[in-house]
Amino acid sequence: METITAPTRNGIDTAQVYGTLDLLKAQPELARFEFRVSNRWIDGPHSRSAIKGFWAAGGEDASRTEPFFLDASEPPVLFGHNEAPNPAEILLHALAGCLTLTIVNVAAARKVALHEVSSTLTGVLDARGATGVDDTYRNGFESIRVSFSIRGDATPEKLQEIVDRAKARSVVYDMITNGVPVEVTAELG
Amino acid sequence: METITAPTRNGIDTAQVYGTLDLLKAQPELARFEFRVSNRWIDGPHSRSAIKGFWAAGGEDASRTEPFFLDASEPPVLFGHNEAPNPAEILLHALAGCLTLTIVNVAAARKVALHEVSSTLTGVLDARGATGVDDTYRNGFESIRVSFSIRGDATPEKLQEIVDRAKARSVVYDMITNGVPVEVTAELG
Repeated sequence: METITAPTRNGIDTAQVYGTLDLLKAQPELARFEFRVSNRWIDGPHSRSAIKGFWAAGGEDASRTEPFFLDASEPPVLFGHNEAPNPAEILLHALAGCLTLTIVNVAAARKVALHEVSSTLTGVLDARGATGVDDTYRNGFESIRVSFSIRGDATPEKLQEIVDRAKARSVVYDMITNGVPVEVTAELG
Repeated sequence: METITAPTRNGIDTAQVYGTLDLLKAQPELARFEFRVSNRWIDGPHSRSAIKGFWAAGGEDASRTEPFFLDASEPPVLFGHNEAPNPAEILLHALAGCLTLTIVNVAAARKVALHEVSSTLTGVLDARGATGVDDTYRNGFESIRVSFSIRGDATPEKLQEIVDRAKARSVVYDMITNGVPVEVTAELG
């Protein structure tokens, strides 16, 4: 079992976390990250992304020897064959993964051992928007609900502070709640 | 090869598409969709989502007999072990998949056969935001660039119109550019 002085807590090397924060304060030019995805259409709504390299800490990261491959498609009701989850579900997965790892990181930094972090996410949309049937509806989710169940060695008040801090620091929560400028260009032929 | 009167174009059953549009106009109560993800923390930044059921067309969809499982984690520089892509990369994949399938759907509806749709997506962020080192930086991507390469049986002008229409109708592009209200609740113990 871990003790309060153990460098690893919740599977996070806290000494590495503190060292990274010190490094970013001393050399802020190392804080730039660039993440990338390459996607290729397969058939119908089915496509596949390859995810491997990224820029971090002043150079191209070389920790991945093989790419990750992730597919996206649609169920039959949306003209696909369930080859993969659909993009709206994948966005919910991105949000779940980011809030969860941010909770785990914040808890580790605050010396709180966690035993369970599970969540269910729900997004609701009216398809009259995306289909162009009725422009009074937006294309995407009207709202997203995230319900966590968290068990850890801390009071409910301290666990709630960790959740609140994670909301304030999550990369994907920020992007989904506040939006991001997206530039789309196309080479056509 | 397909002809201009074939019901399937780009792998999309265009008769089903037109039938769905007619149905949504006649019975708008069928337009409500609810998508869901269940996520569970594994260790460190690593978590796993299960994706199966959803609400569509007035009832619970039963087309998936098994759940999809998608993981999220981080590379070593962000305190993980590359068990999976990270949430910011997964968000880029959601955007790539959604823009691509919307381009394919729009092209099918406009009787344009596509031969290639590929894309590269790049998101840039300054980690001083998410780490709390400097609050003048946001947590998420400052911006996202999407570069498509598209080949099809149409003029570049017509292909550009398809891209523009897909931007105007993509579920995930709407969410990422405009943001979505997210409610987070936690059951703590």
